[in-house]
Amino acid sequence: MSLLVIGTVAFDAIETPFGKTDKILGGAATFISLSSSYFTKKVNIVSVVGGDFPQENIQLLKSHGVDTEGLQVLENEKTFFWSGKYHIDMNTRDTLETQLNVLEKFNPAIPENYQNCEFLMLGNLAPAIQKQVINNLKQRPKLIVMDTMNFWMEIALDELKETMQLVDVLSINDEEARLLSKEYSLVKAAQKILTMGPKFLIIKKGEHGALLFNKKEVFFAPALPLEDVFDPTGAGDSFAGGFIGHLAASKDISFENMKRAIIFGSAMASFCVEKFGTEKLQHLTHSDIEHRVQDFIDLVQFDIELDIES
Amino acid sequence: MSLLVIGTVAFDAIETPFGKTDKILGGAATFISLSSSYFTKKVNIVSVVGGDFPQENIQLLKSHGVDTEGLQVLENEKTFFWSGKYHIDMNTRDTLETQLNVLEKFNPAIPENYQNCEFLMLGNLAPAIQKQVINNLKQRPKLIVMDTMNFWMEIALDELKETMQLVDVLSINDEEARLLSKEYSLVKAAQKILTMGPKFLIIKKGEHGALLFNKKEVFFAPALPLEDVFDPTGAGDSFAGGFIGHLAASKDISFENMKRAIIFGSAMASFCVEKFGTEKLQHLTHSDIEHRVQDFIDLVQFDIELDIES
Repeated sequence: MSLLVIGTVAFDAIETPFGKTDKILGGAATFISLSSSYFTKKVNIVSVVGGDFPQENIQLLKSHGVDTEGLQVLENEKTFFWSGKYHIDMNTRDTLETQLNVLEKFNPAIPENYQNCEFLMLGNLAPAIQKQVINNLKQRPKLIVMDTMNFWMEIALDELKETMQLVDVLSINDEEARLLSKEYSLVKAAQKILTMGPKFLIIKKGEHGALLFNKKEVFFAPALPLEDVFDPTGAGDSFAGGFIGHLAASKDISFENMKRAIIFGSAMASFCVEKFGTEKLQHLTHSDIEHRVQDFIDLVQFDIELDIES
Repeated sequence: MSLLVIGTVAFDAIETPFGKTDKILGGAATFISLSSSYFTKKVNIVSVVGGDFPQENIQLLKSHGVDTEGLQVLENEKTFFWSGKYHIDMNTRDTLETQLNVLEKFNPAIPENYQNCEFLMLGNLAPAIQKQVINNLKQRPKLIVMDTMNFWMEIALDELKETMQLVDVLSINDEEARLLSKEYSLVKAAQKILTMGPKFLIIKKGEHGALLFNKKEVFFAPALPLEDVFDPTGAGDSFAGGFIGHLAASKDISFENMKRAIIFGSAMASFCVEKFGTEKLQHLTHSDIEHRVQDFIDLVQFDIELDIES
């Protein structure tokens, strides 16, 4: 089924303990689209770039089967730019520079061809724009997944809460879950957030894995212990892409299938961090992904016989 | 098979965001013995207390089937005392006071009855004393597990490295693994530490679970997401007790069985943190433990069919 992805398409300049890059391809919608393209070939993107955005980047998305009709090019403007520096623990980073550029004028028009999308992935953007996208769809998608971040909780909490009312799955990290719920315990945080709109909550814990909650159940997916995390940029978006990509491909939005989707998402995130930017996500094979998922299975698989009935 | 536990038996005074205690029963060997007693009834303890140690605490250990012949009572001395305060994240704590007392004169004599032990758990103590215990055994146990902490890495690294040469399994936390190996990546840290003596390494990550490594394999056990962590004191020792208790009971020291042991250890740790001190560990049933292990199974269980052969 078709998947609509909204989010930034950007230039990133990244510095990590392992090296630094000039302006390279980045942005939430870029990572989400590339990642989900390994699961479904009906990926549509709505975003905006400037006249400085290289045609080869658009070709890269197209070569992964991503429909770029909804990628607006504002010829006289510049593409959104973010620059950041990671610390040794790779869990914290400093933003060195943010140039909103085209994002200041972004009006997320939905091409007619995209109107029938059944899966909608709202990548991190101003919550008011995320809401506008939902309102611009003539028919509500079967599943809406929303990613957001602490920044919006601090400057646009009311809009964030409004948009949350409209979505099925919210994806945030542990720090954001605590900020949003004012609860330290993630279990309590999840219970509270699940009264705020979403029926499912994903709490991403970076190198410590991810939790999936609904009101009754909880599932934990580990992160793969890696020799080196080279560049965490885009890991959360690659995760989201694998998650919704698997759901869109399998057309099953049960909790059981969301568990599988979380594992596929975690696998995609584990690839993402192995190289700078989108480099690793550009050249994966189906077999690479299956072997990586097998690594996750091996990592947590154990076999205990209990006397009680399960 | 019989299990020999070495470590402190102590008084703790604990302050957490949820409350504070006067002097209550604590100490590594206490938590390890109580926890392992739910798995095997042949638990022998070697430790030392002062004349101020209440008989009822010794009775408590005995009522759990722990043989206390090796628990020396120095009538004219005082029991080891530790006092600490936890921060809101429960992962960091300040030591408020440490009174070594009887520990300053501790000579870990092994009763003749304990000489045939097949499983040895070296709770956190000065590495020189841990080594002395191994040397005081006429026959090497089938499996030696060593717990230690950053304190000894800082003040007794040479002795620590000597003792490490003599053990099969080392159990430390993530921060300690980084300190000991001088590697940030836990995968690289594990590879390095596994060249320093132990054949197996457990890296405890508190609320983020635990990793088990040998030179070829890795296993990850999650921690159970809890509504509240009430008091983390003794969680690592309860983990160690469940781990070695299961191994001693099942007499199987394969990697596969160590995975199960890690899950049992994680279950015991999850109980420990739900109340102050040893309170929760005093009154568990076999059924409590099985249901808790089932919670771990449910937490990580997923089912993905891959095209590749596993």
